[in-house]
Amino acid sequence: MTAPVTDRAQATAPEAAVDVAALERVVLGRWGDLRRATRDLITDPRFHKVDGLSLTEHRERVLDQLRLLVAEGEVLRAFPTELGGADDHGGSLARFEELVAADPSLQIKSGVQWGLFASALLHLGTQDHHHRLLPGAMSLEVPGAFAMTETGHGSDVASIATTATYDPATEEFVLHTPFRAAWKDYLGNAALHGHAAVVFAQLVTPADGGPVNHGVHAFYVPIRDPRTGGFLPGVGGDDDGLKGGLNGIDNGRLHFDHVRVPRRDLLNRYGDVAADGSYSSPIASPGRRFFTMLSTLVQGRVSLDGAAVNASKLALIIAVTYANQRRQFTAASDTDEVVLLDRQEHQRRLLPRLAQTYAQAFAHERLLATFDDVFSGRADTDEDRQDLETIAAALKSASTWHALDTLQAAREACGGAGYLTENRLTSLRADLDVYVTFEGDNTVLLQLVAKRLLADVAKELANVDAGTMARLVAERAADVALHRTPLTRVVQTLADGGDARRSVGQLRSTEAQRELLTDRVETMVTELAGALRPAGKASRSEAAELLNAHQHQMVDAARAHADLLQWEAFTAGLAKVEDAGTRRVLTWLRDLFGLTLIEQNLAWYLIHGRLSAGRARVVAPYVDRLLERLRPHAQDLVDAFGYGPEHVRAAIASGAEAARQDEARAHARAERASGSAPRPEPKPQRR
Amino acid sequence: MTAPVTDRAQATAPEAAVDVAALERVVLGRWGDLRRATRDLITDPRFHKVDGLSLTEHRERVLDQLRLLVAEGEVLRAFPTELGGADDHGGSLARFEELVAADPSLQIKSGVQWGLFASALLHLGTQDHHHRLLPGAMSLEVPGAFAMTETGHGSDVASIATTATYDPATEEFVLHTPFRAAWKDYLGNAALHGHAAVVFAQLVTPADGGPVNHGVHAFYVPIRDPRTGGFLPGVGGDDDGLKGGLNGIDNGRLHFDHVRVPRRDLLNRYGDVAADGSYSSPIASPGRRFFTMLSTLVQGRVSLDGAAVNASKLALIIAVTYANQRRQFTAASDTDEVVLLDRQEHQRRLLPRLAQTYAQAFAHERLLATFDDVFSGRADTDEDRQDLETIAAALKSASTWHALDTLQAAREACGGAGYLTENRLTSLRADLDVYVTFEGDNTVLLQLVAKRLLADVAKELANVDAGTMARLVAERAADVALHRTPLTRVVQTLADGGDARRSVGQLRSTEAQRELLTDRVETMVTELAGALRPAGKASRSEAAELLNAHQHQMVDAARAHADLLQWEAFTAGLAKVEDAGTRRVLTWLRDLFGLTLIEQNLAWYLIHGRLSAGRARVVAPYVDRLLERLRPHAQDLVDAFGYGPEHVRAAIASGAEAARQDEARAHARAERASGSAPRPEPKPQRR
Repeated sequence: MTAPVTDRAQATAPEAAVDVAALERVVLGRWGDLRRATRDLITDPRFHKVDGLSLTEHRERVLDQLRLLVAEGEVLRAFPTELGGADDHGGSLARFEELVAADPSLQIKSGVQWGLFASALLHLGTQDHHHRLLPGAMSLEVPGAFAMTETGHGSDVASIATTATYDPATEEFVLHTPFRAAWKDYLGNAALHGHAAVVFAQLVTPADGGPVNHGVHAFYVPIRDPRTGGFLPGVGGDDDGLKGGLNGIDNGRLHFDHVRVPRRDLLNRYGDVAADGSYSSPIASPGRRFFTMLSTLVQGRVSLDGAAVNASKLALIIAVTYANQRRQFTAASDTDEVVLLDRQEHQRRLLPRLAQTYAQAFAHERLLATFDDVFSGRADTDEDRQDLETIAAALKSASTWHALDTLQAAREACGGAGYLTENRLTSLRADLDVYVTFEGDNTVLLQLVAKRLLADVAKELANVDAGTMARLVAERAADVALHRTPLTRVVQTLADGGDARRSVGQLRSTEAQRELLTDRVETMVTELAGALRPAGKASRSEAAELLNAHQHQMVDAARAHADLLQWEAFTAGLAKVEDAGTRRVLTWLRDLFGLTLIEQNLAWYLIHGRLSAGRARVVAPYVDRLLERLRPHAQDLVDAFGYGPEHVRAAIASGAEAARQDEARAHARAERASGSAPRPEPKPQRR
Repeated sequence: MTAPVTDRAQATAPEAAVDVAALERVVLGRWGDLRRATRDLITDPRFHKVDGLSLTEHRERVLDQLRLLVAEGEVLRAFPTELGGADDHGGSLARFEELVAADPSLQIKSGVQWGLFASALLHLGTQDHHHRLLPGAMSLEVPGAFAMTETGHGSDVASIATTATYDPATEEFVLHTPFRAAWKDYLGNAALHGHAAVVFAQLVTPADGGPVNHGVHAFYVPIRDPRTGGFLPGVGGDDDGLKGGLNGIDNGRLHFDHVRVPRRDLLNRYGDVAADGSYSSPIASPGRRFFTMLSTLVQGRVSLDGAAVNASKLALIIAVTYANQRRQFTAASDTDEVVLLDRQEHQRRLLPRLAQTYAQAFAHERLLATFDDVFSGRADTDEDRQDLETIAAALKSASTWHALDTLQAAREACGGAGYLTENRLTSLRADLDVYVTFEGDNTVLLQLVAKRLLADVAKELANVDAGTMARLVAERAADVALHRTPLTRVVQTLADGGDARRSVGQLRSTEAQRELLTDRVETMVTELAGALRPAGKASRSEAAELLNAHQHQMVDAARAHADLLQWEAFTAGLAKVEDAGTRRVLTWLRDLFGLTLIEQNLAWYLIHGRLSAGRARVVAPYVDRLLERLRPHAQDLVDAFGYGPEHVRAAIASGAEAARQDEARAHARAERASGSAPRPEPKPQRR
C-alpha cells in the first residue's frame, strides 16, 4: 500500500526546530548590521520614552534625543557623500525604522527633520539649495517643518489653497493663506522648534490673459527668529496641543500673510520660474509633475511600514513571553494551572498575528530593496517609481493597521497587566495610532492601489480625474471580460468536492495558496473593471457616482492585493532559511498566514466557486492544527526578532511573572508536603 | 399585472423621516428622566475630564468630583430607603452610566466606591454591617477599595490565594498574603485614597483533622489611618502607576501580613463563622455559594455595558457630524467637493456601527430591566440570576469591544483631526480600553456564556469542572443530534437558488433574519455539544484537552448568541417607535444590522447550506443599498442620542468645520465672480 503523499513527506521531513540566531540573521536582512548598530545605540536610556512626562518635557526630551542622534547616530546616510552623507538610502531608512523601539516620537520627529524637511531640500531642490540650505537642515542647526497638509484638505494635497504668486518687480513669490481652512496643520516642528519650513503652495505666475496656476510647488521659508523663537513678520501659527500619542513632537499650524519669498528659494528641480516670470519644467504634464514631486516623499511611507512591523514584533515578544509564563485556571489537574499560551483561544489571538508579522517583515525587506534601487538611481524609470509607490501604499496600509490590531490583541492577551503603562503596549499603541492616517490616509492609499490595479487593465488611469478614469476603464473592460484570466488546474480541483484529508493536503501546498490568493485579486479587479464599464458613456457626475458606488469594492481589491504581496514575500523569504528544521517551522507559519487569509475571505471563495463547501469546512480545523504545531516554537519565533531587554522594556516580559508563578507553586508544594494545606469543605450531605 | 410584494409595500410605505425628539425619548428609555438629570448635572465643567493633567492632579480632580456627586448627584439611589437611599437599582445604574460622558475615570471611580465597595457591604453583609459600615461608604467619608483581583489570578477569582484563617482564641480572622502573586492588584482607591477595603480571601476554619477551606469570602478591613494617610500595621501596598487610560483612578496593590480582622467584619450573608469556629451557610454547595456571592457583582458588568454603549454614541455623534460638514476631494464638479459622508467607504465605516450601537442601546435597556427585576426581588430565582449573568456577560463583551472598534473607526474617519485630544476620540478610547478585560475578561465571559448555552443542551453545566462538564454535555449530545432543530421553511427557501430580486426581498424580512441568526446559534451549540461528546468517556486530562481544542468554537458560539440578543432587542425596540416615518428609517437600520451580521458570517451560512451562493452574492449590494437609504438620516439618528455640546465637547463636531468650509467656498466663488482666479496651466502641446 502506498502512503498518501502528505504522510510520506512528513516521514522524511526534518525535525521542526528553530535555529534562533540563524533566523534572526534572516529577519534582520540585508541591512542587518546597520539595524544592529542602531539597536545598540538605543540601549542608552537617554533615548527611551519616559511615560508621564508633561507635553513640554516630552517635547524637549525628544529634541535633545535628536541632538544626540546628530552626535552619535549617523543620521546623514541618505545624504550626498559630498555633503558628509553616504548616499545610502535603504540603509538610512533601516536605521530610522529601528528608532521606534526607543520612542515612536523620536522616530517620527527624526522623520520630520531628515526624512521630510531636509529630504525635500535634497530631492525637490537643486545645487544651490543643497549647498546653501541642506547643511543646516542636516545638522539640526535649522530645525524645520514640512508644511504640506492643510486643515481643509488632509490627504488631498493637489487641492491645497495656499498660494505663492510670483512678483517679477521684486523677483519674489508672495506666499499667502487665503482662509482658515488653508492653514498648514499637524506639522511636526511647527508649534515650537521649527526655524524654517518647506512650504507647499500653488505656484501662480502672471501672464497675458490673467494669472496661471502651475500647481503645487515647494518653497523654503524661514518662519522663526532663531534668537527669540518668535514668528517672523507675516508668519503666524498655533499649537495642535495634546494628541492621542506622539506627544514628543510639537505638531502645530502655520499661516502666511503675504510673506515674500526670494525667487531662489523655490525648490526648482521640477519647476522653475525665470526672473521675468516665465515658467519652465522638465515635466510637461502638470499631473505627472505633481506625482513626480510627491513621489520623492515615498520614503515616509516606506519607513512607516518598517516601523509598524517593528512595533508588531515588540507587541508579540511581550505577549508571547508573558503567555509562556503566566498560569491561570486549572485544567488537567487540581494542582497545576495551564500557561496561557496552551489555551487554544490564546493561540488563535497571537499566532496568526505572529505569522502576519513575519510576512510583513519579509515584505518590508523587499520594499526597502525596491526603494533603494529607485533612490540610488539603479532602477529609476517612471514605472519603477510607480511600482514603488503602489507597493509602499499597499504595505504601509496593511502594516500600520496590523500593528494597531496586534498591539491591542497583545494588550488584551496580557489582561490588566497589559493596561499598565510599564508594560508598554498601551503606550506604543497610542503612538502608532496616527500611522494609519498620516503620510497618506490608509483608505485613500488603498484607493490609489486599486486605481493602479485597474490601470493594469486599462492603462494610464493613475493620474486622471474620476470621469476620464471611468471612461478609460470602460474602454478596456470588454476586452478583459473576453480574456478573463483562466482558472488554473489547482483552483479548479479545489472547487470540486473531495474528502477532507485530500482537501487539507491541497490547501497546504504553496501552489494552491498562491492560486487562491492570486485568483482572488485578479477576479476582483476584473469584476470591478466590468462594473465600471458603463461610466464610459456617462456624464462626469454619473461616472463619479458609479465610481463611488464601487469604492468599497476598490478598497477590498487593494487589500487583497496587499495580502498577496505579503504572502509572496513570506514565501520567497523561506528560501533564505538554510536550516531545514527552521524552514519547516517557518513553512508552517507561512501556511498559517495563507490559510488565515483564505479563512478570512472564505465566503468569497465559496460564492465564486473557488472552494467547495467540503473544502471550506476543513480550513478552520487545519488552522487549529497549525496552531498546535507552531505553539512549541512560539518563543523561538519571537526571540528571533533579535530584541534585547533594553528594547522590550516591559516588566511582564522580564521574567518577573515566571518568578511569581514559581514562588506560588513552591508554596503550594510545601503546603502539600507539610500537610498544612486546608482541606476543601466536605460535600453537603443529601437529605 | 401584479406588482411584486416588495414594490407594493414601498408604494404604500410612509415617507422615511426621523422625528428626532420622539426617537430620543425611545432611546433614553424607561429611566430617561434620571438619565436626563445626570446629563444636566454633568454640563457643569467641574465634572469634565481635563486632558494633560498629571497623574496626581487627575486623581485629585476625580476624588473631588466624587465629593461633588455626593453633594449633588443622588449617588445613593441603589441603597436602602432606611439609610437614605431609594431602593432603585435600575435607576441608579442608569445614572452612573451617564457619567462616562463627563470622564470615564469618574464613572469607574464612582463604580469602585458605590458599585463595588459599598455594594459589597450591602449585598454580602447583613444588618450590623449595613448600619455600622454602610453610611461611611455611602457618604464617601470612608473611601474604599474592592480587593478581589490578585496579580497571579486575574479573572480566576475562585483561585485567589489570600487566606483568612479563623482564630477562636481571639475571635478574629488572620488575613494573610502568602506570596507575591497573591497581592491584590489593579484596585481603584488602593494606591492613595482608600481608608478601608472589602477583601476577598479563602476562609479557613480550624477543625478536627486539620483546617478546612470554605472558599472565597469577603471581609471589611481598614487599611489606612485616615489622619495620616499611611497604611495601618500589617498592611502594605504599591501604586500601579500610569495606565493606558483612566488615570483619574488611583489603582494599586495591597498585601496583608497576618492582619487581624474581628469576626463581625466577615460579610456574613452567605457564610458565617460562629465564635467557636463552626461554619454555616444558607447555601450548602460551595460552588453555588461562590457563584451567588459573585452574582451580586453583576451590576458592574451591567453598567459597563451601558457606559460602553454611551461611548459608542459619542464617537458616532462626533464622526457623523464631522463627516456631514467636511468636504474633501472633488468628484462631480471642479468647484465643489463632496462631504465625507457621501463617500461609500465612509458610510461603510460609520453606518453599520451606528446600527449596532442602536441594537446595543436597545439590548442594554432590556438588560437593565432584567437587572432591576432581579435586584428589586421581583424576579429573583436562581434561574433569573443565571439568565441575568449570562446576558450581562454576552452584552458586556459585545458592547465594550464594539466601543473600542467604533471609537477607532470614528478617529480614523476624522483623520488627523481625530488624533487631536481636543476632539476626544483618542482620550475616550484610551479610557475605554480596559473595559474589555476588567469586571471579567471578555474572552473568559464568552466562555461562561458558551457553557450556559451548552447547559441548555445538557443541564447543570455551569458551575462544574471541565471533566464533569464534558461528560454531561456528552450525555445529552446524542439526544440533541436526534432532535436537531428543524430548519424552518424560510431558511430552507434561502438555501435554494433563486433570482437576486427575490433573494433581497427575503433577506429583508424580519423572519428571515431571525431564522438565520437563531439557526446559527442553535447549530453551533449543537455541533459543539456533539464534538465534546467523546469527553464523556475520557480521563480528566483528556476531557480538558478536548474542551481546549474547541475553545475557539465556544467563543464563536457565544458571540453568535450575543449578536442574536442584540438583534432581537433592536427588533423589539422597533415596536416602541410610534411615528411611522421614524419606524421606517429605524427598520432599515435594523436590517443593516441584521444583514451586516449575516455578511460577517457568510462563509458559515454557505458551508452549512443555509444560503445559496446566489443569495449570498446579493448581501453586499443590499447592504450598500441600505447605506444609501440611511445616509440622509444619519445626522438625525445620532442627534436622537440626545447629547448636547457640553457632552460631546469635540471641536470638530462644533460647527467649526462647516464654518471653515463655507469660508473656503465663499472665497472660491468670489474669485470666480471677480475673474481673478488663476487659470490652470495650459495643456502641453504635442510634438
